[in-house]
Amino acid sequence: MARNRVIALSGGVGGAKLVLGLSRVMPPEALTIIANSGDDFEHLGLSISPDLDTLLYTLAGLDNPETGWGRRDETWNFMNALAALGRERETWFRLGDKDLATHIERTRRLRAGESLAAITKDFCQRHGIAAHLLPMSDDKLRTRVKTGEGWLDFQDYFVRRRCEPAISAIDFAGAETARPHPDFLAALTDPALRAIVICPSNPLISIEPILALRGVCDALRAAGAPIIAVAPLIGGKAVKGPTAKMLRELDLEVSAAAVARRYGDLLDAYIVDRADAERCAGIAPRIVPAKALMETLADREALARLVLETADQLMTVAV
Amino acid sequence: MARNRVIALSGGVGGAKLVLGLSRVMPPEALTIIANSGDDFEHLGLSISPDLDTLLYTLAGLDNPETGWGRRDETWNFMNALAALGRERETWFRLGDKDLATHIERTRRLRAGESLAAITKDFCQRHGIAAHLLPMSDDKLRTRVKTGEGWLDFQDYFVRRRCEPAISAIDFAGAETARPHPDFLAALTDPALRAIVICPSNPLISIEPILALRGVCDALRAAGAPIIAVAPLIGGKAVKGPTAKMLRELDLEVSAAAVARRYGDLLDAYIVDRADAERCAGIAPRIVPAKALMETLADREALARLVLETADQLMTVAV
Repeated sequence: MARNRVIALSGGVGGAKLVLGLSRVMPPEALTIIANSGDDFEHLGLSISPDLDTLLYTLAGLDNPETGWGRRDETWNFMNALAALGRERETWFRLGDKDLATHIERTRRLRAGESLAAITKDFCQRHGIAAHLLPMSDDKLRTRVKTGEGWLDFQDYFVRRRCEPAISAIDFAGAETARPHPDFLAALTDPALRAIVICPSNPLISIEPILALRGVCDALRAAGAPIIAVAPLIGGKAVKGPTAKMLRELDLEVSAAAVARRYGDLLDAYIVDRADAERCAGIAPRIVPAKALMETLADREALARLVLETADQLMTVAV
Repeated sequence: MARNRVIALSGGVGGAKLVLGLSRVMPPEALTIIANSGDDFEHLGLSISPDLDTLLYTLAGLDNPETGWGRRDETWNFMNALAALGRERETWFRLGDKDLATHIERTRRLRAGESLAAITKDFCQRHGIAAHLLPMSDDKLRTRVKTGEGWLDFQDYFVRRRCEPAISAIDFAGAETARPHPDFLAALTDPALRAIVICPSNPLISIEPILALRGVCDALRAAGAPIIAVAPLIGGKAVKGPTAKMLRELDLEVSAAAVARRYGDLLDAYIVDRADAERCAGIAPRIVPAKALMETLADREALARLVLETADQLMTVAV
């Protein structure tokens, strides 16, 4: 039987780049993307799922390459009218007019009793996305960070406060009870599984919420396919976002090697930038040097191909 | 003591024209507008108050003179994105990008426990409106119409079905229990009350829901100021909207006179178009012929002045 199924664990913008690459170098219907939903929150009475939406818009070709979030060719008439109603303080999370359709429709359907996964599946179909985009859970797990001002909800810290407060801890509220989505667990036991990819997302706030769900680490270890991570840091720097700052504040080493150490024995291979390969020697069973910076679509596809080739080589070795 | 306070009962577009006129020919802070909320409904999970919004936008100078609803210089990016998500069938009620701010903010605050009246008051302040715009009630009264297809919710009939089904009855669900807003009742007993104006709105679906609230007719009769209605029909035709069609289907005469007869002994004076004055003789204690068609802002102001002069004359006679 052909092993053709791939699972990718992903957060928003960084992960979405590799996910897009994967969806273009393999049959997209064989790709299951597990999206972090620890960042989800309620704003203005709307249920917002930032990482799911970034993945959705990226796969649909509707993403905004300048911002890394929201939709391209967006307009802001709603937001400006809201500010005129005295809600200037609520405009820190920018909701574009087109983007609003996603949030209003999702909120309406969640209230009507549909699951986040079912709604996401329908949105993908509507946008012509063949890959399976799945929230990590239909249950509530919410990332919070501890700062000098006390615990902050993630978006409050991340967007409203622009990651300015120094953090001393991260917590996944609800992790004790939140269950991984059954389709996620089912994908992990699929005999056709070819690879499990940990995308180059922020480990602390994008990947670890997924790993924090009950039973996920065990299920990953038990899966019959290699686990390959792509480093989110290049030369000790994050391509985008606060990964480096957060690691530093938590007294962790700011390096690709330190990220791999966090994933520990889960990894079968670690794809790192050539600049970091030497320092990563021995951290994972296999270290694969590459151009890790994905500037162009061709970069995304090349890295995706390398991930799959690495998985196939590991599988051949294992057999 | 100067009698300077005016109460206007109003629906949407027709009534809003006279309300705007009133707000410009008297101190606006002395004007209390009682808006029909029998048309209010939930759509896409949002609480929508069509007549309140038309009045709000008209008084704020943000109204769309072409449509008679919604905001001027509106954009439709939300609506188009919603259609792309497969909700084409839900786009019958057009929600513009700017207009959405009103609905999302109102919905959020209603859910948080604020009253419709309090939210409306704040919106007015934000838009620099000095007049008091008040929903007729914070309780739920919902207009429904009986058709060959059974009972239809009002917006379903009015917007989605474009008033096409013939109606055989109108019902105000909740009228037994819905209480007029306390500020409405308080305004009616204000010793400074100068006039009560029934605006040229559809009597069946804009004014009668207000009159159907418990105790309103008695309170109107007991108020110490004349009640003056302005005819919504001119030469047997409605300026806009389905008033004529609805009257006809209910086997009622389609005329300014028939509308006055519905208001019965409430009226102290009835302002009608010159073309209709003769046929209205004797229906109200005083019939005042005028140019009832409000085409220009000057028309709105002239009609508003006539309403107030008529009230003052009646008061002088009474004294």
